[in-house]
Amino acid sequence: MTPHNKKIPRMSLERLPIYYRTLCNLADNGYLRIKSAQLGKIIQIEPTTIRRDFSYFGDLGKSGYGYDIAHLIQIFGEILEVNETQGLALIGVGNLGRALLINNFRRNPNLEIISAYDADPHVIGETINKVTIQPLSDLKATIQTQQIKGVISTVPSHAFQEVVDYLVDCGITSILSFAPEPVHVPKNVHVRYLDLTSEVQNLLLLAEISDV
Amino acid sequence: MTPHNKKIPRMSLERLPIYYRTLCNLADNGYLRIKSAQLGKIIQIEPTTIRRDFSYFGDLGKSGYGYDIAHLIQIFGEILEVNETQGLALIGVGNLGRALLINNFRRNPNLEIISAYDADPHVIGETINKVTIQPLSDLKATIQTQQIKGVISTVPSHAFQEVVDYLVDCGITSILSFAPEPVHVPKNVHVRYLDLTSEVQNLLLLAEISDV
Repeated sequence: MTPHNKKIPRMSLERLPIYYRTLCNLADNGYLRIKSAQLGKIIQIEPTTIRRDFSYFGDLGKSGYGYDIAHLIQIFGEILEVNETQGLALIGVGNLGRALLINNFRRNPNLEIISAYDADPHVIGETINKVTIQPLSDLKATIQTQQIKGVISTVPSHAFQEVVDYLVDCGITSILSFAPEPVHVPKNVHVRYLDLTSEVQNLLLLAEISDV
Repeated sequence: MTPHNKKIPRMSLERLPIYYRTLCNLADNGYLRIKSAQLGKIIQIEPTTIRRDFSYFGDLGKSGYGYDIAHLIQIFGEILEVNETQGLALIGVGNLGRALLINNFRRNPNLEIISAYDADPHVIGETINKVTIQPLSDLKATIQTQQIKGVISTVPSHAFQEVVDYLVDCGITSILSFAPEPVHVPKNVHVRYLDLTSEVQNLLLLAEISDV
């Protein structure tokens, strides 16, 4: 990660994984170069946005020629650290947690849930997809030996603040939560909320409004 | 849904579910009024943004007094149609689909998966949480008798375009997809992509950059 990444707008960074994935697909299909207009059509992003985004990562394209796909993949891959497996911990092995552990980002070799935790004594000790579920109190010790880069939590809202306080205490700074209620964390800790209910409600709302 | 909703910015609408849910929580805990500054602290949204958002839904607050929580809940609830159950169809009953069907938005009485479809003959006919899994080809007939407002798809990317074409043909206009690759749909069809891999990658990226 080069220091100038500091200045890259958050929205541009948020688009990086979709750029990266699409370019890998194009390369797999034998493409060598692509113009922003063509890429924009595929991923439904404005070409001007793509060109601006790419410019933050250096002068990567030539006018009229397009972008060199292999070069982009290399640059973006380095930023996303796709060559290095990033270990994740899963907190909460209910129905959703179980599905995440079984799937375990199998299409993305650089992400892997390497340990899982639950509060339910009936679940602790069970092994799913080679990961044995531990009591949450083990996390502090596990984190000393495993390189855990982030946490995925399926802990329900009412218990989440308490769990987050413990995670912060363990030194975790990246948390993806499936519980929608915001929690309080220190400034250096990042929590991303993925609320399925809101996603569906927003979808239905947008469809309805555009029907008016 | 009142016609002036047409003019409400998409970002304001996207925040509506989180406003609604937080206000319901506050009401459950006995609160009657709230100021934008207090609400902003809870949900980590700028008070000016909250006041602007709320203004789109009518003049709902009084300066120095705050917003009447019950009134906001009523207004927002009407827009979100929370009093009316919205039937959803699930396409793809693998690990993730199964978890979604077992959980089935149980904390949100207004959203419900009422039918589920898969291509795998081993899965078709199985009943999960009172929903019997049907072949996808049944959707067109089912949709005549059931009020399906939207579809949740866990179909993998390589098969998704074909499935989407069929959904569009069946008259579906709202699709939430767990496959990240964008698909082509007519203008009146809304597809929302929920890509867990990108979510995790973005999270780790943000944490790393702020560590620089």
